[in-house]
Amino acid sequence: MKFDDNCVFCKIVQKQAPSSVVYEDDFVMAFLDIRPACEGHTLVVSKEHFEGILDIPGELLGKVYQVSKVVAKAVVRALDADGVSVIQQNGRAANQVVFHLHVHVIPRHCGQKMKVDQELQTVGYNQLDLTAAKIKAHI
Amino acid sequence: MKFDDNCVFCKIVQKQAPSSVVYEDDFVMAFLDIRPACEGHTLVVSKEHFEGILDIPGELLGKVYQVSKVVAKAVVRALDADGVSVIQQNGRAANQVVFHLHVHVIPRHCGQKMKVDQELQTVGYNQLDLTAAKIKAHI
Repeated sequence: MKFDDNCVFCKIVQKQAPSSVVYEDDFVMAFLDIRPACEGHTLVVSKEHFEGILDIPGELLGKVYQVSKVVAKAVVRALDADGVSVIQQNGRAANQVVFHLHVHVIPRHCGQKMKVDQELQTVGYNQLDLTAAKIKAHI
Repeated sequence: MKFDDNCVFCKIVQKQAPSSVVYEDDFVMAFLDIRPACEGHTLVVSKEHFEGILDIPGELLGKVYQVSKVVAKAVVRALDADGVSVIQQNGRAANQVVFHLHVHVIPRHCGQKMKVDQELQTVGYNQLDLTAAKIKAHI
């Protein structure tokens, strides 16, 4: 499996950096975003390093989204959400920040706009781990 | 295959309503959004009617995203884009408008914000068909 030494998500996948994990199998991992748009904002990534949708093999992308579905269901239940946004950005022009393919799974509540960019704040792992436990209970 | 008589995307899939198609197979179809965020904004849908990520079977969702990858590549090449956003909304809380699973594939250009909601304008099929031809040339 191909990793990139300079990629923070490769470090997370290899357990060389901390994360609040909600799901893991041989190919895909899901963990909480440390700068969430709201509680429950989860990132689903391929374990192997690919920049985005243009270079990841189709079959592996399919696996990433099958996990995204499982995570979306769990997030909606855990956070009692009214909906869920499933967003994947590619390239700086699309505001991709970490160049390792990741799908944002973001619970949505009626009447609440999604926080973006400078509105986002970093959340500590203690708090993220509590949320991860709530989500894992529904996976 | 299950359709919903009141669903505009089911009508498109069954060729009972017009659309500018860029891709079609037994399970998945891709056509241009008539209220695009920018030229090349494509919707990828399952042919069978499912509301969203919570009720579509995982395997079919995987197929939808494998097609979304093919469409994303073609859209980037056809529109000479710098990036691409791949967005799937579920529920009114997430601004889902048509309740038939669809993935937005939106080409992105550096320095251009994505148009949303009231900024969007309906484009005629003559113009959409020209864009569809450009995209199909790269599929």
